[in-house]
Amino acid sequence: MSAKKNFTIGINFGAESVRAILVDVSNGNLAATSTYSYYHGIITDKLPDTDIELDEGWALQHPQDYINALKRTVPKLLKESQVDPSQIIALGTSFVGSTLIPVKDDGTPLALIEDYAHEPHAWPKHIYHQSAKERAGRLTQLATDRFETFLDRYGGKLNHQWFFPKVWELYDDSSSIYNAADKLIEASDWIVWQLTGIETRNICAAGYKALWSKSEGFPLETFFSAMDPDLANIVDEKMSREISPLGQQAGELTEEAAQWMKLEPGIPVSIGVLSSHAAVSAATVVEPGNMAIIMDSDFRHMILSKKEYRVPGMCGMVEDGIVPGLFAYEARQAGSGDHFSWFMNNAVPEQYSKEARQKKISIFQLLEEKAAALKPAESGLVALDWWHGNRSILVDDDLSGLILGYSLKTKPEEVYRALLEATTFGTRKIFETFIASGVPINEIIVTGGKPTTNKLLLNIMANVTRTEIKVAKSPYTSALGAAMYAAVAAGEARGGYGNIQEASKKMAQLSSKSFVPNNNDKKTYNRLYSEYTLLHDYFGYGHNNAMKRLNNLRTNILEKKRR
Amino acid sequence: MSAKKNFTIGINFGAESVRAILVDVSNGNLAATSTYSYYHGIITDKLPDTDIELDEGWALQHPQDYINALKRTVPKLLKESQVDPSQIIALGTSFVGSTLIPVKDDGTPLALIEDYAHEPHAWPKHIYHQSAKERAGRLTQLATDRFETFLDRYGGKLNHQWFFPKVWELYDDSSSIYNAADKLIEASDWIVWQLTGIETRNICAAGYKALWSKSEGFPLETFFSAMDPDLANIVDEKMSREISPLGQQAGELTEEAAQWMKLEPGIPVSIGVLSSHAAVSAATVVEPGNMAIIMDSDFRHMILSKKEYRVPGMCGMVEDGIVPGLFAYEARQAGSGDHFSWFMNNAVPEQYSKEARQKKISIFQLLEEKAAALKPAESGLVALDWWHGNRSILVDDDLSGLILGYSLKTKPEEVYRALLEATTFGTRKIFETFIASGVPINEIIVTGGKPTTNKLLLNIMANVTRTEIKVAKSPYTSALGAAMYAAVAAGEARGGYGNIQEASKKMAQLSSKSFVPNNNDKKTYNRLYSEYTLLHDYFGYGHNNAMKRLNNLRTNILEKKRR
Repeated sequence: MSAKKNFTIGINFGAESVRAILVDVSNGNLAATSTYSYYHGIITDKLPDTDIELDEGWALQHPQDYINALKRTVPKLLKESQVDPSQIIALGTSFVGSTLIPVKDDGTPLALIEDYAHEPHAWPKHIYHQSAKERAGRLTQLATDRFETFLDRYGGKLNHQWFFPKVWELYDDSSSIYNAADKLIEASDWIVWQLTGIETRNICAAGYKALWSKSEGFPLETFFSAMDPDLANIVDEKMSREISPLGQQAGELTEEAAQWMKLEPGIPVSIGVLSSHAAVSAATVVEPGNMAIIMDSDFRHMILSKKEYRVPGMCGMVEDGIVPGLFAYEARQAGSGDHFSWFMNNAVPEQYSKEARQKKISIFQLLEEKAAALKPAESGLVALDWWHGNRSILVDDDLSGLILGYSLKTKPEEVYRALLEATTFGTRKIFETFIASGVPINEIIVTGGKPTTNKLLLNIMANVTRTEIKVAKSPYTSALGAAMYAAVAAGEARGGYGNIQEASKKMAQLSSKSFVPNNNDKKTYNRLYSEYTLLHDYFGYGHNNAMKRLNNLRTNILEKKRR
Repeated sequence: MSAKKNFTIGINFGAESVRAILVDVSNGNLAATSTYSYYHGIITDKLPDTDIELDEGWALQHPQDYINALKRTVPKLLKESQVDPSQIIALGTSFVGSTLIPVKDDGTPLALIEDYAHEPHAWPKHIYHQSAKERAGRLTQLATDRFETFLDRYGGKLNHQWFFPKVWELYDDSSSIYNAADKLIEASDWIVWQLTGIETRNICAAGYKALWSKSEGFPLETFFSAMDPDLANIVDEKMSREISPLGQQAGELTEEAAQWMKLEPGIPVSIGVLSSHAAVSAATVVEPGNMAIIMDSDFRHMILSKKEYRVPGMCGMVEDGIVPGLFAYEARQAGSGDHFSWFMNNAVPEQYSKEARQKKISIFQLLEEKAAALKPAESGLVALDWWHGNRSILVDDDLSGLILGYSLKTKPEEVYRALLEATTFGTRKIFETFIASGVPINEIIVTGGKPTTNKLLLNIMANVTRTEIKVAKSPYTSALGAAMYAAVAAGEARGGYGNIQEASKKMAQLSSKSFVPNNNDKKTYNRLYSEYTLLHDYFGYGHNNAMKRLNNLRTNILEKKRR
């Protein structure tokens, strides 16, 4: 055997489970993979081991689950691969965010301290936590009234999932926990703290979730004091102004953390990063001109650019947010992946389920086969893909889904195909908005979960966007990206890489199959897309606010029913 | 036993089967009932006993099936009831129309003559026959260009199911059959001819299907000659200008027909009538002020009035068309009943089917239970009920269905309830249009098939229309109506009645359960109805012709695919 191989570990803390991988630094090949589903899952009902009930819309997590994930997954990687711990040159993590954790000065989550454990606000607030919605609205209004420039970087609207709406909720609803918390920290930084003993704040979470930018820093104290005078100095009191770039070394693995994972202490641990953003370089996208789409529950569209543009209706624009030296734009289609699952669970008749069983294929596969046999426009249907609102372009959570064109002959596969098409029309809206704003896109590279295995979806997307669609080879790009940033943190001297572009060139790969548009379908889809656009603009720009009125009415009815 | 009881027989020739009933003339009680499904069904594929294929959209029937229906059903009535044929004082029929039959001078259908049997145009054209659509469009245009007053009585648009579009298709596409046909006749009149040996033409079919009116008669020769010079005299050459009122005696049962049915020859047979229209008096509606809704595949709304009004977008308005002395208006919601079945067959998931089986109830029943547990507006959904186009108010076959307000939480029962609601919104549009045009409606009485057993639908309808909904007691009102007109044809002297009002008073009954609106739901539905109206007007009045463009696109794609 020739020279000793180098490996890094990448661990992605997803919404419901953790994926750890062990990767060959020279080529990105997977030596082993392991997963752990959070023991407490997403906590929406009662606080663990208590009868304390959570309000509607709450979603918490158990911090111990995060540590247990390390303990469960990493030793398995070693066992499965038979790689010696000495060959592991660095470890990196990615984490879904914003996940807000109130902690003591030493990083201990308040949720793990007996005095606070009975208080829901002491617990980590998951990305699915919804009850800061009203605060997000007020915060947007506040920023709008003050003409805050940062609003432009977030499509003019702040999301309830983000850091400060959650902080505001915490401050307003539980001053005791707010005061008890020495620090308020993103889970993506907290996990790095646990691994290294050093508190850091990553640029990705700061930029995309906490209104920070390289040129302007955090919002001014006057903005925070407008929320509440007590919050004026929140950044200095409970956060940090020192924001670390991606791929930097956060510190070295502590003795304790090394023991959790059966690793050697002292190996470099990279700065934290958000899950979707970690996937971008792992999908080979490290230069301007390509769009990465991370397809999971949501579809997230990431684009790099040398110049700064203001693109209307995007989700976030962060300088150095993914690749140092480049502006990184994020757009999003909320619930795109979820609404295919919704369809399978709620709108597919029994005979189809039986047919799938007979053919020994999944119901997804059956519907894909049936829908693939249809021609574009054959169904007479067109849909608006807003089952979970519209996050990009319109930036409106209160919009809802629509299907138009039903007849007595409409078949389930036609509806399914209309949903796939509508999703790609939404993608094209984002695509065209970027191009119209000056950000070029030549290629689309998709990565993520289940939707990336849907050939029909990708084929339709190629024709609708009139762009070749390539697919990242790794099914675990959020973990691979973490492993790649780790390789950069290790640096060339230790057998890693000098920057993420280098790492991407060596460790990230595309699958050989790509999806190329054909002229006939492109033309038909142009017509369907015009119909989509008419409906998009009519319902999206307030010509008919039916969706919002129905939403309000629904909320009122449900509240009355609950009382 | 006291005085001998008198009975009449009513036979309804429905779209796919025949229902015969034997009724006690004194109180309308059912002595026996019997059905027959047409042996050849609706012929859409090949001519019977041949390899001659029919074009897309064709729908024919076998005339022998009509005669067989008499032979199969009536003897069973006698056997089941043990009623002596001498107690039967008259026989009446109702028939779905327009069903066009080309016949020889003696009434023999060309389809039964060897020389013509190989020719599709020789066969009876069923109401589902679609291929005269383009002719109906041209005929509407012609009438519009000529400012024909009759257009106002038919919502400004002629339907392809009607008599003259079918005649025009026949003339254009098969002059040999057109020329071979001594007469062109409605099935509702043809069956009476078979029973009595006498050719008559009933006012109901003439008025609702053949553009005839009491004040103006048939369209002028110049109208017909504008279709084609050869058609100028079609009425005198192949039809009749002698139009008979409902409840009149057409003739007496012939020896031959009596033998088919094991009845006594010589009993009065009443003039023909259309199925839905026969149901009206059997649902107790024989005076102005009440609306009867006949709920089957379509919903048909029938209203009587002393005065003549022009109501926009109705389906037909015929003086004496249902009750002599009154104007009878018809409106229609096309496919309303069918689209509930569409939903059950195409959009209900397997787990629901399993649950229904476990509970030993139908899937309709399960969905009704689940949907009934919801509050109005709880789903956040609103739909347009145009799965089979819009027949009344907008009079546009090319419109299609729409559902708005989907979220990831939308459940099948919510969609189902939205469809029920949308149907009642469509009913309210018709209801309000009549009232706005001066035709008063105080009560709604429903009759027909499956939808009349849907308590949730009727409950929603009461709240949406803000009107009490009553239900006809008989499940066979089209047959009962035929039996009632028969009792009128028999006349008082023979133990029948002097007019249909008398017959209705004695023979027609309502069920004791009615549906009364409640104030809370009424208010919520007013809001949902406004949303429906906005969408109805936006998509219905051409602000966005998406449905029609998608329909055209779809037709083109399907034609290309077929080639």
